[in-house]
Amino acid sequence: EPQTKRPRVDLASSAFYSQGLSTFRVPMSMHAANRSRVLKALLESGFLASERSVMFFQGGAEIPHYDTDTHNLFQQESNFMYLFGVEEPGFFATIHTLTGETTLFVPHFEEDYAIWMGKIHSLSHWQTKYEVDHVFFVGEIKSVLSRQNISELLVVYGQNSDSHAFSILPNFPGIEDFTVNKTDLYAPLVETRVIKSEQEIELLAWINKISSEAHVAVMESCHVGMTEFQLESIFLHYIYTNGGCRHVAYTCICGAGENSAVLHYGHAGNPNKGVLCDGNIALMDMGAKYHGYAADITCSFPVNGMFSERQRLIYNIVRDAQLTVESHIRPGVRWLSMHRLAEERILIGLISANIIKGDMEELKSHNIAALFMPHGLGHFLGLDVHDVGGYLGDAHQRPQELGAKSLRTTRTLLPNMVITVEPGVYFIPFLLEKALAGPQSRFLNAEILRSFFDFGGIRLEDDVVVTETGVRVLTTVPRDPDQIQEIMRKNRV
Amino acid sequence: EPQTKRPRVDLASSAFYSQGLSTFRVPMSMHAANRSRVLKALLESGFLASERSVMFFQGGAEIPHYDTDTHNLFQQESNFMYLFGVEEPGFFATIHTLTGETTLFVPHFEEDYAIWMGKIHSLSHWQTKYEVDHVFFVGEIKSVLSRQNISELLVVYGQNSDSHAFSILPNFPGIEDFTVNKTDLYAPLVETRVIKSEQEIELLAWINKISSEAHVAVMESCHVGMTEFQLESIFLHYIYTNGGCRHVAYTCICGAGENSAVLHYGHAGNPNKGVLCDGNIALMDMGAKYHGYAADITCSFPVNGMFSERQRLIYNIVRDAQLTVESHIRPGVRWLSMHRLAEERILIGLISANIIKGDMEELKSHNIAALFMPHGLGHFLGLDVHDVGGYLGDAHQRPQELGAKSLRTTRTLLPNMVITVEPGVYFIPFLLEKALAGPQSRFLNAEILRSFFDFGGIRLEDDVVVTETGVRVLTTVPRDPDQIQEIMRKNRV
Ligand SMILES: [Mn+2]
Ligand SMILES: [Mn+2]
Repeated sequence: EPQTKRPRVDLASSAFYSQGLSTFRVPMSMHAANRSRVLKALLESGFLASERSVMFFQGGAEIPHYDTDTHNLFQQESNFMYLFGVEEPGFFATIHTLTGETTLFVPHFEEDYAIWMGKIHSLSHWQTKYEVDHVFFVGEIKSVLSRQNISELLVVYGQNSDSHAFSILPNFPGIEDFTVNKTDLYAPLVETRVIKSEQEIELLAWINKISSEAHVAVMESCHVGMTEFQLESIFLHYIYTNGGCRHVAYTCICGAGENSAVLHYGHAGNPNKGVLCDGNIALMDMGAKYHGYAADITCSFPVNGMFSERQRLIYNIVRDAQLTVESHIRPGVRWLSMHRLAEERILIGLISANIIKGDMEELKSHNIAALFMPHGLGHFLGLDVHDVGGYLGDAHQRPQELGAKSLRTTRTLLPNMVITVEPGVYFIPFLLEKALAGPQSRFLNAEILRSFFDFGGIRLEDDVVVTETGVRVLTTVPRDPDQIQEIMRKNRV
Repeated sequence: EPQTKRPRVDLASSAFYSQGLSTFRVPMSMHAANRSRVLKALLESGFLASERSVMFFQGGAEIPHYDTDTHNLFQQESNFMYLFGVEEPGFFATIHTLTGETTLFVPHFEEDYAIWMGKIHSLSHWQTKYEVDHVFFVGEIKSVLSRQNISELLVVYGQNSDSHAFSILPNFPGIEDFTVNKTDLYAPLVETRVIKSEQEIELLAWINKISSEAHVAVMESCHVGMTEFQLESIFLHYIYTNGGCRHVAYTCICGAGENSAVLHYGHAGNPNKGVLCDGNIALMDMGAKYHGYAADITCSFPVNGMFSERQRLIYNIVRDAQLTVESHIRPGVRWLSMHRLAEERILIGLISANIIKGDMEELKSHNIAALFMPHGLGHFLGLDVHDVGGYLGDAHQRPQELGAKSLRTTRTLLPNMVITVEPGVYFIPFLLEKALAGPQSRFLNAEILRSFFDFGGIRLEDDVVVTETGVRVLTTVPRDPDQIQEIMRKNRV
């Protein structure tokens, strides 16, 4: 049943974004605070505020589906969303470096827009909706900036440390009359995004709660004979119906059986269409997006509702790694050391399970853990699911070896960083066969190991906030195997 | 309950695409037939087949989400899907103009792909999967073409008559060594796409059936107090769970009340978040996509499950226009004349309803119908929801006046064209106020008309095939108001 609770009464008169019903109300003051914090960081970085300098931002535009008459459903660019909360395409904005005043430039529409797309709003509508100081049309950018005597535009320009993509530079007719400063804004803005405000954390907590509930809904409905995409569909339906979340933060990864050992399964080349077979483990990595912000949660459970002995064995190894890391997270701890801690717990678990053997220091120096967890322990989370800033600050250089080379940050943790804790143990036959044929083989109990080749993998992913003293786990999915069995049993009676 | 029927047993040994369970099996022979038909059309257009000429196609690539580490979920480019049925990004292909032989170029992956994305398949896997004559890697395009002694590449290049976007030209290192022919392929290929094969029609019929069932599921669950997006979510969940349809053919339009009078409501600037209020009409324009092919269906119904008198009145006018058009469709009939027929039926209906008045010829010459239906009667449908070719063939030039100017084709109908029949009547206050203030006002009964300003709009959209003798309606949604009430009543008891 869709949720149709009445909207909460909000006594504050300020503008907010929400999807209605009981969905979260994001106050526009959150974005105003983001703007202030970025300006503060810019000035603290040594940039001299000037009445002739503004930070300049271009929001996203609709992207056509090739040369057809349809578009991909628009989603705002993350920096623009962070600073202005604008849900619509085609906007520009400035923040004055001296006064902090914000100017929004809104697209102009011809009369036909009102027939096809909806009401054409006045400039004051946009000013009220987004709580900015000034509003003009996009066509006026050059003249407004000239009238304001602006000469310098600070733009965001840097390279994403995960995708290696460069920022898309803003553009408008007349931009050549201004000095475009590509160097000073990137680091202050990204660093500000790394440390979340309390308002952002409450938003992320809510998205996590909705996404966690949706994962439970998936477990409740799961049974042998369904397909992976039917589980994906349950998740999507839940977050949209109950959370107003029209988008996911990333393509849903819904692998059962051997598919669960493909880390980023679910893409168009491997699209969640396997059948859930008796005895399979299911690995569900799915997170909602709301007002541009992301959740990133992974659950693993047996599709028939009952953990087999070996499923419980591997599950408990991964859960131990996750709990150990979460109990060690606090400001001042380096993420790379948390990754090593998770690897150590996994090694200990695999030794007890008799899958691997040998001296702990040797196991570490031969990178045996990465054969089973060939990815990083976790990554920043915010507007982007792999959020920005992982290799700024005091980051160590990206490691070279399997596993750690996929760490999306190596930084020292600070209060109000939000990061995922997602250890996993996977049995990836081609990787393990290669190890069995090389110098790592002396650490592997080949026969037992091979008996796991059809196992797939287990990942458990929580989203956590680094607090002053430790950690706050935002993810609320059940993690205890008995609790999961109990939830899944209900569907069967 | 998700549908988990067993896959149908298919005695043919040929390759096919399907999402498993009881979803449709699209034989790769459909694409082979498409290739043959395009080659035939090319030769019939006067192009001289040559052992040195191939048709050359570049499939779609993944599109990053701005500069982040995520991508929009890949969907294949329509011409590439039409000819090769390839679901994955990064492919190229050729069809030899003399032999008709097809060569597929598949992307090469590094070993890490197997960890993150899945099994790295052999070339023979792709040959079997897509039933092509030759398979090589993308990096080999230039050397393979040179070895085959190819000198001319025929590429698709033209302008979409709806979006005005130009085809994206293919590119690969070394393309400058070949003659690129941009002129000869576009029209034969597009014309072939306009006339659907029997296999394509059966596929479109199935997508229509799944989409129709999903519309019924929406009606069954609809009640006052829900939001528009909750209806959208029911549709999406239905088509994915039961049809394996991960994509829609276009952004869902789910407007209730006044929102139903916004023709392309539902986009990011107007995102289906209105609350369903007692007395509202709901207009649901939603269609699934499967293996690249589209459905496009609109239903309109009262959110409380009972048509009011005026809702039934307007509904019946629109339904009459739809039925009248469908009974007149046959080969040789010009689509522009069908548009005029729909307008005439709407005028007759609005006269009976006392909303407009005057002599029929005068009403027509003053374009009064377009005040209520300011869009075209329908458009070709196939891979694209607004399918290609509307202004090729014997098309008349696009009309200039409101309504007809939005016709996406004016052509004479031919057997196996697939087209939408989607008359509508909308009360768009700003449009009608303008009319009331001008020379059209003498045809309008102002008081009665104004009483409809909060009505919204009704559209009924069927997808039909032009047959040798008439029409085959693919859409299977209930259209009779009593039948709709009966479906919606069940939810209430
Ligand atoms: Mn993650
Ligand atoms: Mn349509």
